[in-house]
Amino acid sequence: MKSLTALLLPDIRELIQNHQPSDLREILADIHPADIADMVETLEVEDAARLLAAQSAEFMARIFEQVQEDRQLAVLQMMGRDRIIALIEEMASDDRADLIKALPERTVDSLLPLLAQVERNDIRRLLSYEEGTVGAVMTTEYASLSADLTVIEALNSLRKVASNKETIYYVFVTDTARRLVGVVSLRELVLSRPEQLIRDIMTSDPVFLAVDEKQVEAAHMIEKYDLLAVPVVNADHKLVGIVTADDVIDVLIEEHTEDTFRYGAAGEPVRYATASPFSIVRQRITWLVLLVLTMFVSTWALAGFELILNQVAALAFFIPMLMGSGGNAATQSSTTIIRGLATGDVQIGQVGQIVKKELIIGLTVGVALAGLAMIRGFLVPASQANDQVLALALTLGITMILVVTFATVLGATLPLVFKRFGFDPALMSGPFITSVLDILTILLYLTTAGLLIRF
Amino acid sequence: MKSLTALLLPDIRELIQNHQPSDLREILADIHPADIADMVETLEVEDAARLLAAQSAEFMARIFEQVQEDRQLAVLQMMGRDRIIALIEEMASDDRADLIKALPERTVDSLLPLLAQVERNDIRRLLSYEEGTVGAVMTTEYASLSADLTVIEALNSLRKVASNKETIYYVFVTDTARRLVGVVSLRELVLSRPEQLIRDIMTSDPVFLAVDEKQVEAAHMIEKYDLLAVPVVNADHKLVGIVTADDVIDVLIEEHTEDTFRYGAAGEPVRYATASPFSIVRQRITWLVLLVLTMFVSTWALAGFELILNQVAALAFFIPMLMGSGGNAATQSSTTIIRGLATGDVQIGQVGQIVKKELIIGLTVGVALAGLAMIRGFLVPASQANDQVLALALTLGITMILVVTFATVLGATLPLVFKRFGFDPALMSGPFITSVLDILTILLYLTTAGLLIRF
Repeated sequence: MKSLTALLLPDIRELIQNHQPSDLREILADIHPADIADMVETLEVEDAARLLAAQSAEFMARIFEQVQEDRQLAVLQMMGRDRIIALIEEMASDDRADLIKALPERTVDSLLPLLAQVERNDIRRLLSYEEGTVGAVMTTEYASLSADLTVIEALNSLRKVASNKETIYYVFVTDTARRLVGVVSLRELVLSRPEQLIRDIMTSDPVFLAVDEKQVEAAHMIEKYDLLAVPVVNADHKLVGIVTADDVIDVLIEEHTEDTFRYGAAGEPVRYATASPFSIVRQRITWLVLLVLTMFVSTWALAGFELILNQVAALAFFIPMLMGSGGNAATQSSTTIIRGLATGDVQIGQVGQIVKKELIIGLTVGVALAGLAMIRGFLVPASQANDQVLALALTLGITMILVVTFATVLGATLPLVFKRFGFDPALMSGPFITSVLDILTILLYLTTAGLLIRF
Repeated sequence: MKSLTALLLPDIRELIQNHQPSDLREILADIHPADIADMVETLEVEDAARLLAAQSAEFMARIFEQVQEDRQLAVLQMMGRDRIIALIEEMASDDRADLIKALPERTVDSLLPLLAQVERNDIRRLLSYEEGTVGAVMTTEYASLSADLTVIEALNSLRKVASNKETIYYVFVTDTARRLVGVVSLRELVLSRPEQLIRDIMTSDPVFLAVDEKQVEAAHMIEKYDLLAVPVVNADHKLVGIVTADDVIDVLIEEHTEDTFRYGAAGEPVRYATASPFSIVRQRITWLVLLVLTMFVSTWALAGFELILNQVAALAFFIPMLMGSGGNAATQSSTTIIRGLATGDVQIGQVGQIVKKELIIGLTVGVALAGLAMIRGFLVPASQANDQVLALALTLGITMILVVTFATVLGATLPLVFKRFGFDPALMSGPFITSVLDILTILLYLTTAGLLIRF
């Protein structure tokens, strides 16, 4: 698909630049809006704006919904006020709310009064939900009806509203106070006899989400029950929106990207292909500076052990190996627990069990690595070890067990602590845990050396 | 939902142990199979098997499809051969293929001959697709029809087959050779006049996937075009299956988990809650041992610079800081590129652009961190620096720029190289890149020191 779009691009560009809007409209009518959105992102901004200007308001909205946010904002700058209003009125309610959220406040204040009352209210309501909640991703364009209709009445009313709804595959059943009482699928409607009542074929008390729940809950619910959409209710159990499976797919992909950047301490995700190097630097440098400052502590810790290090030169050779092993062990257990918390495989209340399990894991792994470290220790020439090769090897072995065990347990518990205090456990990135452990490794290592090696 | 299930569990357990299958059936009939699957995972294996034995073959299959694989296998051990055959015949084709794949070969060989020919062929075909491909996740239970039918004929034929199909919201249109020629949605069928022909309302040449494409392509396609399902074709463009949005959600969640474990070098994902500590050790220890062996190289590298380290004690204090900065910079750029490759934001052909961008980023960040490192260097007492504080500070600054720049570029390019040679770029985990960089940092640091500091 991507290549087809790329193939067409030169012709499209020519039509735009020769001002042939009707030809342009005709060619694009056969192409999926998502593919045209790719073109809008690739063309010069002026050409992209002209491409959109040539379309009907409705088709323009279908394309625009699929365009990346930064490009949406750039194209809007080129559009007249009337056209922007038409666009906003035609956009799907959830995409529209996302766009309004990204606009400067002044622009929003000048646009809102020009919209119809019902759309203004819809936007205001969606904007009021916190980022990351179900409310911020749901759409208000769902189909709903009363339980007293017959199947044929329901199908007729669906036909009338279908074009404005995100999905008609699930129809939500509400009472007179708009409280959610059931759901019926289009499949069930089509398979039922025309005169049957909705209340007799609907699923009563369907699963639902509260408007302030996390978006990832919507993903879990849709995955668990194999749904196409989940209804969203407010505190009075009134139906206020739905979250569809394709919205959930977007949420999951976005969440995966955010998590990856957090593990890598790489800041907020950027669109790499279009981001300038300096905008990427801005994302990355905060963490790097923080980590260097943390590591200042390790330089002081080492300086504190200057005497020991001077007498037994070989001690310094093993610092990277011990630090690395601690960092790796902690990264392993922290990623396991962070992901377990996200999928629900690990619960915050199981902290006792987790500590016990990681203690056994850490000790087992620590003993195995200690064996390797001691072998390496015995290979050190006596001259470099102040004639105490055995003491050096023992120091390495004991330190390895201590460091790896401690790292494994700490790596598993820090995400739990973060979660407990309401932070995202994924903030416990590998680089952060590793830097903290570096300091601890130095203290454990050189203290043990001080006890075992005669100076 | 989880708590409701937990609430019911004691009653359910009592009914099972008092052998009251009909009461059990009655209570469970009102509960979603996915919730009953939770119970099957929580109960003792014997009780879980008895719970399933009390259900009709069809309802048992709906529950069983949602049970985790390890528990599926345990429960199967308790079931009679006839019951297993009934279960396999009722299961959805994709879930069934997954189960068969997990069974020991001997068991499969004894079961397959007992199945009907058509199911045997279906299983054999699905088993032949490689893990991770579209073929391995698709279902063969799609609805298809000819373009020559009218809307009313299509709806009537759908009503007959609906109960056996994974979805009837998309109906796929094939020619007499079963080649894919179009798709029509149930929405369009319901909204069209009964006498219209399918060929006049269908979308011709719909998007499709090849059976050997990666599963993540299915996710991208469904996400991009907001679909409920994508048709899958073989090399002759014959329709062989469909991938549905809820299958894609499973794939995305699984992929996220696998990636997380790879970044953390934590082996293959395990179910943490039920896994024994030693099975987790098995997953983690391979990487840790490999990394310790890699770090043996860094101990030898340091030993090679023994003379310099002995003369300027302070040099050793900064090794962790320099190594850490290199590791962190590489982790940042590698996670960015790995995720970009997965989402399609970064293309393997852009390697020139990427190297250029990361070179600018690395140099900028390197200079900033070099400033910090030099400040720390100037704080070193002259006695520890062999009276050459300026040379030490310069060494730190220059090394920091070299290490961070090199780390940033290497972190970005290694995943591209991996991808180029057909490996998963996510195998370029933080711990692995960090260990390789440690060695390089030592060489750059102590060589620079040898050039700038007089001994």
